[in-house]
Amino acid sequence: MMMFAELNTPLRTIMTPGPVEVDPRVLRAMSTPILGQFDPAFTDIMNNVMKMLQRTFKTNNEWAFPIDGTSRSGLEAVLASVIEPGDKVLIPIYGRFGHLLTEIAERYGAEIHLLHTDWGTVFDPEEVITEMKKVNPKIVAMVHGETSTGCMQPLEEIGRACREADVLFIVDAVATIGGADVQTDNWYIDAAIGGNQKCLSVPSGNAPITYNDRIEKILKQRKKVERGIATEQELAEGRSFSAIRSNYFDLSQLQDYWGPRRLNHHTEATSMLYALHEGLRIVLEEGLEQRFKRHKLHEKALIAGIEGMGLELFGDARSKLPTVTCIKIPDGIEAESVRSMMLNDFGVEIASSFGPLHGKIWRIGTMGYSCRKENVLFALASLEAALIRHGAKVNAGQALQASLNAYEKEKSLI
Amino acid sequence: MMMFAELNTPLRTIMTPGPVEVDPRVLRAMSTPILGQFDPAFTDIMNNVMKMLQRTFKTNNEWAFPIDGTSRSGLEAVLASVIEPGDKVLIPIYGRFGHLLTEIAERYGAEIHLLHTDWGTVFDPEEVITEMKKVNPKIVAMVHGETSTGCMQPLEEIGRACREADVLFIVDAVATIGGADVQTDNWYIDAAIGGNQKCLSVPSGNAPITYNDRIEKILKQRKKVERGIATEQELAEGRSFSAIRSNYFDLSQLQDYWGPRRLNHHTEATSMLYALHEGLRIVLEEGLEQRFKRHKLHEKALIAGIEGMGLELFGDARSKLPTVTCIKIPDGIEAESVRSMMLNDFGVEIASSFGPLHGKIWRIGTMGYSCRKENVLFALASLEAALIRHGAKVNAGQALQASLNAYEKEKSLI
Repeated sequence: MMMFAELNTPLRTIMTPGPVEVDPRVLRAMSTPILGQFDPAFTDIMNNVMKMLQRTFKTNNEWAFPIDGTSRSGLEAVLASVIEPGDKVLIPIYGRFGHLLTEIAERYGAEIHLLHTDWGTVFDPEEVITEMKKVNPKIVAMVHGETSTGCMQPLEEIGRACREADVLFIVDAVATIGGADVQTDNWYIDAAIGGNQKCLSVPSGNAPITYNDRIEKILKQRKKVERGIATEQELAEGRSFSAIRSNYFDLSQLQDYWGPRRLNHHTEATSMLYALHEGLRIVLEEGLEQRFKRHKLHEKALIAGIEGMGLELFGDARSKLPTVTCIKIPDGIEAESVRSMMLNDFGVEIASSFGPLHGKIWRIGTMGYSCRKENVLFALASLEAALIRHGAKVNAGQALQASLNAYEKEKSLI
Repeated sequence: MMMFAELNTPLRTIMTPGPVEVDPRVLRAMSTPILGQFDPAFTDIMNNVMKMLQRTFKTNNEWAFPIDGTSRSGLEAVLASVIEPGDKVLIPIYGRFGHLLTEIAERYGAEIHLLHTDWGTVFDPEEVITEMKKVNPKIVAMVHGETSTGCMQPLEEIGRACREADVLFIVDAVATIGGADVQTDNWYIDAAIGGNQKCLSVPSGNAPITYNDRIEKILKQRKKVERGIATEQELAEGRSFSAIRSNYFDLSQLQDYWGPRRLNHHTEATSMLYALHEGLRIVLEEGLEQRFKRHKLHEKALIAGIEGMGLELFGDARSKLPTVTCIKIPDGIEAESVRSMMLNDFGVEIASSFGPLHGKIWRIGTMGYSCRKENVLFALASLEAALIRHGAKVNAGQALQASLNAYEKEKSLI
């Protein structure tokens, strides 16, 4: 007797800031029968993923590979491997995911220095640079695209100043990689962490990272080979005082697994690697610059529709994250009831937000495969209908006209 | 211009101790379009996976869910969440994966106490119990099935003694779950960690764990809600001295995500959860006891073939792990050359081993979907042919006859 039914999932229009719809080609790639982890046919695939990640991160770094876990596993792998207890880490916070960097860094013993600005804005780079010079930290860690507020921080000036001061610059590019420009090398980023389930349109489950030789130097000092697979010499060398505190997130070991030594660490998540391989192939086939233009086009069309409806955007327009659009919830409207209606009657999912913004804004993502004309139009149509149903005053019928106009006007973008 | 070709993988007969072949129904489930992580249709799937894991682990524990990472992420999540710096942890080691428990535990500040026995044997439970009473640790952590040596440790007596002494008993059941009996509750196991890519025949990428209220009590004492999503009251309560050192592996937070509060932690790895859902459904459809019998049957047929060929098994037969069979490499034979020939000419993958056993034994897995008659027969045929090609003396033609005889004799098992 069968106790549990087979998967029978509804098909949704997913317009959140992640996870977003997965490209059908990526879904299909995951049905590929698996290979053993040291099969040369598999290690070739690992190598190709590394090459495609180098291009996607716009870097010449030798090391670019996924951590087997969700996006925050990538953040933790980098921070755990670089932070030694007592290290000063400066974290400028402009939304929830800046807090997440703090949460991780302090668990690894960092002396945390924070800089805050209002949610919905970003930092003047000079402000961060001034604080960096005052604190003189080992690391400045910050978020490139804050999905919680829909803002994007300019990074190049901060990166250059960090490099000049010999400070490491670590960037959470989870919400931007593959959807907005991330120039790892040109912006002096020492380590960057990307996300699958957003603009790459790959399911959550592995987290691409890249880091340069400034980071690798630290890893070498903290390196340790596991007992059970270490050579006699390695065992005799023993363990340094500042060994990395996590085994799973120890980049010095992961590097030996992804590198030519192929030293067993974990069992690589085969099907997720297939998914990432296909996702990156699709990104590079479209072309990064073309892909960024496409994201801008749909963002413009979405904004036109929202404003056409008579709703107001949240956040400083000058620092808007092109892949996430935040909307102020009209006074007196039950925000969660509108979202539920959109999901239950239209199969359209948009997001609420966190902490101080919960109940104040909705967030609509235009990311990766979800970032398509019909999705934008249907999100607008369902939002308008649900708002009218909840008694809100909107310019009925104007959202889609404004959005269609924007598509016509901006079609040169794609 | 396409720079990277689409995936075009060879189809292998995978007879290693993991990762093994994935059931085609599981591969297919991964092509299911994704859902948002808080979509009720998705949280229903999360709940069903928890229920199926409870059955698979044979437990009434409330908590049974996967960690998003490879199997060792499950080990690290449990150890990181339970070990506080200075805690005594007793680890009886009889192979590589005992060392891995040590590697993880010591990074989280444990005072490690080791007990060793020869690789290829297991412990007399009394020996572990005596040491446990002497050391009086907070935790005894050990491996149920050691894939590195093909041995399986009896656990019930040790578990009972630990419970009586109020010591926590944490078990790595990565190699046994779904292939050999794991009785979490009856054996007094406080936390168990399973593996996907072995007897469950799901790709590596999430790691099922379960733990009881004795573990949960520790989590509650160490609990912390993240800034950015915490309530004012939670923020005011602040952080306890012994907060869990990893954010990603903090079971107190993961529990809030898997529980009714649904507090955002990571973005659940959607497609891997679909895979695990289907894998568990298949396990329960076959039935656990029937599945264990099937694994025993194919093990017997494999052993009959190996002995029929004239090769010798490695390890104490009384403590053999039914899902992994270790073979002594005949003198003068180039072990890696034989394995390469099996892979390149026959598409059959078997494994070498680690550390002191590298070059001494081969390991053949009979796990999950790979554990099929035609796979056992083809593994034997290709091993025999490769050995003859390498000049080894074998009883030509006898392996398959002996294996076929075993299948006929033991067919009552299935």
